Amino acid sequence: MDKNLSGKVIHRLTQYHCIVMNMEEQGKDVVSGPCIAKLLKIDDSQVRKDMKILGKAGKTKVGYKVSEMKRIIEKILGFEKAKDAFIVGSGNLGLALAKYDDFNFYGFKIRAMFDNDPLKINIAVNGKQVFHISKLPELAKKMSVEIAVLTVPRKFAQETCDYLVTSGIKYIWNFTPTVLDVPDNIQVWNENLIGNFLQFTKDI
Amino acid sequence: MDKNLSGKVIHRLTQYHCIVMNMEEQGKDVVSGPCIAKLLKIDDSQVRKDMKILGKAGKTKVGYKVSEMKRIIEKILGFEKAKDAFIVGSGNLGLALAKYDDFNFYGFKIRAMFDNDPLKINIAVNGKQVFHISKLPELAKKMSVEIAVLTVPRKFAQETCDYLVTSGIKYIWNFTPTVLDVPDNIQVWNENLIGNFLQFTKDI
Repeated sequence: MDKNLSGKVIHRLTQYHCIVMNMEEQGKDVVSGPCIAKLLKIDDSQVRKDMKILGKAGKTKVGYKVSEMKRIIEKILGFEKAKDAFIVGSGNLGLALAKYDDFNFYGFKIRAMFDNDPLKINIAVNGKQVFHISKLPELAKKMSVEIAVLTVPRKFAQETCDYLVTSGIKYIWNFTPTVLDVPDNIQVWNENLIGNFLQFTKDI
Repeated sequence: MDKNLSGKVIHRLTQYHCIVMNMEEQGKDVVSGPCIAKLLKIDDSQVRKDMKILGKAGKTKVGYKVSEMKRIIEKILGFEKAKDAFIVGSGNLGLALAKYDDFNFYGFKIRAMFDNDPLKINIAVNGKQVFHISKLPELAKKMSVEIAVLTVPRKFAQETCDYLVTSGIKYIWNFTPTVLDVPDNIQVWNENLIGNFLQFTKDI
């Protein structure tokens, strides 16, 4: 992926991709800028600006070519480059994410799951085996995995995080409602679901 | 909740709340501004600015009082006000969200779940019953529910969304990788997990 893309641009490109994927399924060949802007409730000029990043993506008199826009976004966002990850915590959310096949399409590959519950060890979920957490350092090294999705219960979040860091994990996608204390060289993305909910429903 | 709070402030307050909740559990009475700033990797001055919104939350010479900061954030973000919601789509993700007890604490109350699969109807998950989707309009009216969490498969997202809109739902928390086409009076929050993942791992 182009590392100079801002977070906001990455988000909009992902959403443009959702739109053209949907249009392609509906057999539509062309999509107009104003149509995209209306669906996303953003300004038309923003779409035009983003399209310059895509090299206009097959601009015609009536709009952009759906297949070409899709292909160019996939190239820019690097969907073809697999990024291997572990899911740490095989509870409901961990299992749901493991079963979410759409992730594969975007290059996000779950290679294995981990838990400390003996009842869960060795089961396979959607082709992903659950290992005991003590196997993580060895498997992270062997499989060259640096990304972990953290879905353990809140009270175990920090100690599990510390263990991931000592195991060589560099990127932690944090689904727990916890602020993790990590060294500066570790990237954490907090999936702040509660914050999103409160923001989205603040007028109620 | 104070409707003038920006999305960014709501997100930071939610994270401050995670921090003080954790500190309280560890038996700590006071937290310093620099300690919060370091955990969140933000500037110290930002924390001081936010603390003004909280009326300094029990500022002492050594920091802020944990219990008071927690109480004030809960009041400002309106955790005591219940917001009732339905989960639409009782697949893995829907079930994971239904089982996520932490939501209750923040005032987010799942009242019922919906699906169109006869095998799922009438089961109860964490005290929430699954109803056939055809019951939604009636129950939304009866229970005065205006919020729906959309977790159906991607290909059914738009038609389900249209049905929610005609059923009186006003807020749609969209977990599907789809851009929904909705009237202007409907609020949609897109939980763009893929966009987050791509942004967070863009240096790989």
